[in-house]
Amino acid sequence: MKRQIRVAIAGYGNLGRGVEAALQQNPDMRLVGVFSRRDPAGVGLLDGSVPVHAMADIEQYQQEIDVMILCGGSKTDLPEQSSYLAQFYNIVDSFDTHARVNEHHSALDQAARKSGHLAMLSGGWDPGLFSLNRLFGEAVLPQGETYTFWGKGLSQGHSDAVRRVPGVKKAVQYTLPSESAIERVRSGEQPALSTREKHTRECYVVLSEGADASTVRESIVTMPDYFADYDTEVHFIDEATFDRDHVAMPHGGFVIRSAVTGNNNRQTIEYSLNLGSNPEFTASVLVAYARAVHRLASAGETGARTVFDIAPGLLSPKDPVQLRKELL
Amino acid sequence: MKRQIRVAIAGYGNLGRGVEAALQQNPDMRLVGVFSRRDPAGVGLLDGSVPVHAMADIEQYQQEIDVMILCGGSKTDLPEQSSYLAQFYNIVDSFDTHARVNEHHSALDQAARKSGHLAMLSGGWDPGLFSLNRLFGEAVLPQGETYTFWGKGLSQGHSDAVRRVPGVKKAVQYTLPSESAIERVRSGEQPALSTREKHTRECYVVLSEGADASTVRESIVTMPDYFADYDTEVHFIDEATFDRDHVAMPHGGFVIRSAVTGNNNRQTIEYSLNLGSNPEFTASVLVAYARAVHRLASAGETGARTVFDIAPGLLSPKDPVQLRKELL
Repeated sequence: MKRQIRVAIAGYGNLGRGVEAALQQNPDMRLVGVFSRRDPAGVGLLDGSVPVHAMADIEQYQQEIDVMILCGGSKTDLPEQSSYLAQFYNIVDSFDTHARVNEHHSALDQAARKSGHLAMLSGGWDPGLFSLNRLFGEAVLPQGETYTFWGKGLSQGHSDAVRRVPGVKKAVQYTLPSESAIERVRSGEQPALSTREKHTRECYVVLSEGADASTVRESIVTMPDYFADYDTEVHFIDEATFDRDHVAMPHGGFVIRSAVTGNNNRQTIEYSLNLGSNPEFTASVLVAYARAVHRLASAGETGARTVFDIAPGLLSPKDPVQLRKELL
Repeated sequence: MKRQIRVAIAGYGNLGRGVEAALQQNPDMRLVGVFSRRDPAGVGLLDGSVPVHAMADIEQYQQEIDVMILCGGSKTDLPEQSSYLAQFYNIVDSFDTHARVNEHHSALDQAARKSGHLAMLSGGWDPGLFSLNRLFGEAVLPQGETYTFWGKGLSQGHSDAVRRVPGVKKAVQYTLPSESAIERVRSGEQPALSTREKHTRECYVVLSEGADASTVRESIVTMPDYFADYDTEVHFIDEATFDRDHVAMPHGGFVIRSAVTGNNNRQTIEYSLNLGSNPEFTASVLVAYARAVHRLASAGETGARTVFDIAPGLLSPKDPVQLRKELL
């Protein structure tokens, strides 16, 4: 048996835990360490035999790690961490600040080329697998429209916004794809749809003692930027129901390409995800790409890569002959 | 503007016509010739200004063609043509005899390496885009099951079988995915399903004068290999209805990955195609891969490739910065 790919995790929140769980499903890979800004003694992994190190010591393990998976946030962590860590490691990140993706790519590419490492940015499902489907859709069917719908999924930012409303004790917000909009797209109509028209919002709220439901509802549905322009439903529930039914992190969505070929023949490609756990799925994508990164780096490649640059076969533990035989 | 990629077509049936139509949707590519075993004077293209040549002269145009797209059949044409033409051209084929795919790959790889060309085999949607989704599904979610459903689609082989039944004047057979089987898969149940359990068959038949409907129906539904093991519906229709409603070549299907991650969280990936014209869609995939083949060959790569080996970004006319900005 070949040596296992040695993977480390930088940042142990929901995504980091998901990476640890995903690695346990991939026998050709092994978690060799977790780096955290918290006190390592207070970080409890799924597998207690894996060492937890202080983030400050992260440069010291270069001989022991093949790929580092970065599990920090795109807002403040990754813009600094990714380029810094690409000096020492082959890395995979899930950078998702769309407006800054080329800037992030340039910084990473420069750092990784200089140090002789490979750095994969913006892995996950959007950006990631959804991006790939947007690309395939328009490359294969140039004369058409692409539609991305998100949900049903928990939105962290919108949940936070609801929780800031006076009178709200606990709250969660789900973004739902509009069924009627999806049906219009599937019909081949190629409608022009704004993000607002494609989605509705649903809030589950536990009121603080003495709070007035109608006042809270009004504050939520009229909130500018977050809710005012959307169809929003607010459901008030008791705390026990909330704690039982609204702690998971489901998500998903659709990428649909609606196009015509030849003499006006309708062609539709639809890709959809229905995810019981958003962070665990994102983590599973990062782990598959970590395998590809290790292979490319072992072949001497350096610099930055996205899902667009990586041949799909590299994601699988199977060799090319086996892939053609079993999956082609 | 960059020089257009010069593409030629070998074999001008439904697939060849689809390639010509697809090229007209891709301004960075241009059809420069069609090769046919028929008398060139009798081959009518969509664009009459494109020259039609005799297949026997196909070696003579090496300076004028960047990529040759092979549009013959997998049974007799491609096993000979692909390796032969890889001596002279970069090629794309849609070889779909699954049991012989590694054999075809070896022959092509040897011919293409020797001549310094690039050869892409088994392009299209199955094999092709469906294969990619089977690979992504199991690479990202190792602990699960993958299901491929075909249809609603016209099956050429089964239509031929029905037409051989005495008393049948015209007939067409559609394979349909079983809705109940799809729902079981979507539910996360991970059932064991045979090809038979996943599909039903539907025949539209025009009877010959004086033929007995119940005898014809019985001959069809009891036909071994083709229908005996399936749920088969037979509809008798008049010839005008047949000619109006059953001359298109729709197809499609589903690839569904049903899996679990972490603490038994269900994760489902679903990819589906709803195709108004099967040959035009297959052709559109081949044309996008012809772009990738031209780029890889221009970069000096040689040998055989499948969808598993080709980085997705190479399929798009957009450059990497634009791809990251617009689609990532």
